[in-house]
Amino acid sequence: MTFKVISSSDKARMGEINTEKGIIKTPAFSPVATQATVKGISSDELYNLSAEIILVNAYHLYLKPGEKIIKEFGGIHRFINWKKPILSDSGGYQIFSLAGLRKVTEEGVRFQSHIDGSYHLITPESSIKFQESLGTDIMMVLDECTPYPCSKDQTRQAKERTTRWARRAKEAASGLGSIFGIVQGGIDRDLRRESAEELVEIDFDGYAVGGLSVGEPKELTYEVLSYIADFLPEDKPRYLMGFGRPEDILSACEQGFDLFDCVMPTRHGRTGQAFTSNGLVNIRNAAYTSSKRAVDPKCSCSTCQEYSLSYIRHLIYRKEILGLRLLTLHNLHFYLHLMKMIREAIGGGRFLKFKKEFLTRYTQ
Amino acid sequence: MTFKVISSSDKARMGEINTEKGIIKTPAFSPVATQATVKGISSDELYNLSAEIILVNAYHLYLKPGEKIIKEFGGIHRFINWKKPILSDSGGYQIFSLAGLRKVTEEGVRFQSHIDGSYHLITPESSIKFQESLGTDIMMVLDECTPYPCSKDQTRQAKERTTRWARRAKEAASGLGSIFGIVQGGIDRDLRRESAEELVEIDFDGYAVGGLSVGEPKELTYEVLSYIADFLPEDKPRYLMGFGRPEDILSACEQGFDLFDCVMPTRHGRTGQAFTSNGLVNIRNAAYTSSKRAVDPKCSCSTCQEYSLSYIRHLIYRKEILGLRLLTLHNLHFYLHLMKMIREAIGGGRFLKFKKEFLTRYTQ
Repeated sequence: MTFKVISSSDKARMGEINTEKGIIKTPAFSPVATQATVKGISSDELYNLSAEIILVNAYHLYLKPGEKIIKEFGGIHRFINWKKPILSDSGGYQIFSLAGLRKVTEEGVRFQSHIDGSYHLITPESSIKFQESLGTDIMMVLDECTPYPCSKDQTRQAKERTTRWARRAKEAASGLGSIFGIVQGGIDRDLRRESAEELVEIDFDGYAVGGLSVGEPKELTYEVLSYIADFLPEDKPRYLMGFGRPEDILSACEQGFDLFDCVMPTRHGRTGQAFTSNGLVNIRNAAYTSSKRAVDPKCSCSTCQEYSLSYIRHLIYRKEILGLRLLTLHNLHFYLHLMKMIREAIGGGRFLKFKKEFLTRYTQ
Repeated sequence: MTFKVISSSDKARMGEINTEKGIIKTPAFSPVATQATVKGISSDELYNLSAEIILVNAYHLYLKPGEKIIKEFGGIHRFINWKKPILSDSGGYQIFSLAGLRKVTEEGVRFQSHIDGSYHLITPESSIKFQESLGTDIMMVLDECTPYPCSKDQTRQAKERTTRWARRAKEAASGLGSIFGIVQGGIDRDLRRESAEELVEIDFDGYAVGGLSVGEPKELTYEVLSYIADFLPEDKPRYLMGFGRPEDILSACEQGFDLFDCVMPTRHGRTGQAFTSNGLVNIRNAAYTSSKRAVDPKCSCSTCQEYSLSYIRHLIYRKEILGLRLLTLHNLHFYLHLMKMIREAIGGGRFLKFKKEFLTRYTQ
């Protein structure tokens, strides 16, 4: 994997991540395929949406379908029929949020499957080994995520363990895929700086920021965002994990982040919420009962070219699968198109102007 | 609407129904779009599957989204974004099977919505008027369907009411769409003959057979099938409603039926059952856990070209929407491709040979 910054606009940067499976133009958004599928969407549809990378979750895939089946297919790409790059999250966050009884020791995490209650141990080494058997292009180290609020002492201990685990993960790796470290440290500037410096010393192919959007007030998230990118090397991709709303992505791009993932476009699609150039729209609104216009008249996606608000509203109310499919397609198009506009704005040296104009319409 | 028989093979016939919205090559299978959508499938996908007609249900559409919205769109075609022919079932069967408290009088049926419990009256006239506001290409008369078992007296009364209602429906129609009568009469040959003769005297654009597959033993269904087509005119399309399995469709084609609809390919898709050239396959079977082959290696559908049994099985077990979508697409392709093979076999004067060969593989 190589990364190059092609142009920048203030701190925002436009570039490319090159992998054996293809180029990812950055800033990039990765649709989330938690259980080996972007919910409701086929690979062909993702190609048509110009998605260049998708994210799978190692915790979920480790439980189902499990390593044996994926190995028999020669990796996750063939299993799910997706030829472009795939990033695998280590599943650290999912173990902390989904799994039953769990115990964190220096060795790793013992936990109970949320599916069948079976017991498992995942270590920094086994996590990387499993991700290597997935054959993903970007792998994430196992980290210890702290909740909010969390004492400074506890945050420091989790940060330090995250560093030790990151070193073990790097040492266990065979060099088959790229590995990103994950910066922890809660909302503490000193701990965040230490975490970043320690990971940079280990030397990863890219750096992610984790442990944000775990319940802290938005001002604190933005405070961390305002300094954290500066602690990370300029010649490596910076990935803001599980984050977020269009306005969040714009702010993070402004700070110099290159990669994002979030379940919002797919999850909101399933609950009847559409992202539009004029902000988030609730399709269930009575105002759309007989509206013949598109979800977003300015949008060029297949949903907006072919279907009316009224019809999609009918489908959502009747719990028809086609309704959430059409909205999910639209929302993914919205995110991927936003990233394209961001890249063009950075390339044209007018990112801040673009951001302001976009937000004026979006938050009107 | 016009209908012509192009060629026949014994009693089986191959022809064309011509409507303003396009040609329906017969024998034809109509995917079912009960609530204004073929569950999970977009119009573009239906065009790609070569579907030439779909069925909507007047009972469901009358309740939701209701007449007002569909009128504002200028009809159901524009509301759902489907340009080819649409057949609307009157909803008689749904009122009998879904609605709450209902009372059948000579005037019509009073019933309670299964959605919100509201009270409604539907008459032969209002049903046709509503279907005219849908703008469907083929409309069905309101009929009274008898259950199984049912006394001869009760079956006769329902048959006679069906005839009277059919006459009223025909008289109420403005001539905007074609209307099919529905033959009732349970499993009684004399009543079936009377019903057919009475409807033919009223003169419809086509004739449907209803009141089958309502719980009677399969032998009795097949007994009715063996004579009922002979009571219907040769120069009008014959439609066997809500029927059925591939082997049923083959038997009905053998008797000279031209049009079919059934929820089986879509419903089975949602429950993890696939129609294949070797019979019905349960995707959940442990034998497919790590199977790299297609659902049906002989199938040319997009699902079979791109996805493995193992992956689809994983999706079905994880309750992922993509799984049921891929199976629904495959099953619809199976049905529509079967109809194409039936038409070719009739055109080639080798229908019985084709039927035998197909069933040998299918029921092996």
